[in-house]
Amino acid sequence: MSTTTTTRSDRRAAICDAVFELLGEVGYDRMSMDAVAARARASKATIYRGWSSKPELVMDAIEHRFGGVTQPPDTGSLRGDLYAQLSTLCAAASGEDGAIFTGLLTAAMHNTDLAQCMYRCAYESKHDMYEAMLIRAARRGEVPEGTSADLLHEVLHAMVTSRRMWQSGPLDEAFVTRLVDGVLLPILRQGQG
Amino acid sequence: MSTTTTTRSDRRAAICDAVFELLGEVGYDRMSMDAVAARARASKATIYRGWSSKPELVMDAIEHRFGGVTQPPDTGSLRGDLYAQLSTLCAAASGEDGAIFTGLLTAAMHNTDLAQCMYRCAYESKHDMYEAMLIRAARRGEVPEGTSADLLHEVLHAMVTSRRMWQSGPLDEAFVTRLVDGVLLPILRQGQG
Repeated sequence: MSTTTTTRSDRRAAICDAVFELLGEVGYDRMSMDAVAARARASKATIYRGWSSKPELVMDAIEHRFGGVTQPPDTGSLRGDLYAQLSTLCAAASGEDGAIFTGLLTAAMHNTDLAQCMYRCAYESKHDMYEAMLIRAARRGEVPEGTSADLLHEVLHAMVTSRRMWQSGPLDEAFVTRLVDGVLLPILRQGQG
Repeated sequence: MSTTTTTRSDRRAAICDAVFELLGEVGYDRMSMDAVAARARASKATIYRGWSSKPELVMDAIEHRFGGVTQPPDTGSLRGDLYAQLSTLCAAASGEDGAIFTGLLTAAMHNTDLAQCMYRCAYESKHDMYEAMLIRAARRGEVPEGTSADLLHEVLHAMVTSRRMWQSGPLDEAFVTRLVDGVLLPILRQGQG
């Protein structure tokens, strides 16, 4: 990797950090491209050369922070993997990432591109991880070969985001245990009947 | 019931209808109390005598439209009842009620009272209906006596609102069938194991 590439990547990371700092401080509607430039100590020319509009800049920052491929935990059992993965997800949803995401919902309700970007990063980009988890579980004989992760993923994502959004209950260990043992494993096991 | 009471109740209904028409047309932020008065052909004095602020007026309209007690369907089987209830819920979420609710999310993210009101009307006020459904199912021997509706209700509500909000899939018959047979009945049955 050349020095130039590293610098560009560092600059992108700094600009994305500035976007999230400002989103947390002033919200999407009041955040300006110029304020991002100032916060990231970048020139306005750099910002406008990289991103033509605020939605584009915010979507790139979302991709950068949330859109990565995640490796599934590997605890040796499906129950252990689900528990570990959900604990990580609940901790993230309860913390700064969850606050940023909930804060962006307002803007997303008026901007289909932004909503699709958020959905892609928070949901679609994580799907392969759940498929990989179930492939390993099938190898251990815990679920039938070819068990789909579709329903598992949709249910756990809906449950976590619903609690986070409505503040209707804690995303704690008791919730994770109840979701794994009371919902997810019964859903997966009924395919074996 | 006296004539005065009927008139007041009719007037409240007309004012609530005006609130939802305007919410659909201009959104929460741009809706004014005066516009509601004009639309409902009510005097401003009537509006301000009944409701001291816009949040209070909108919350009362939400209670009026969404907060009612619902009778559970009674088809003779738990599967039939769940299917009927979810079909009704999905039809409402796909139609005008769903659009109003999604439209109010933006305002609710900045107003805890409004968010709590929406949650109370869309979720808490429906809980007894699911409990009643399970009591009847227990009498028929379909689930154990004392089976709680908590998990059932939380899962189905999260699944419907998540699809509606992210436009991530249709709220159609295939979804209802998959949710009833693939998720809700397995959750309820695992208590019998």
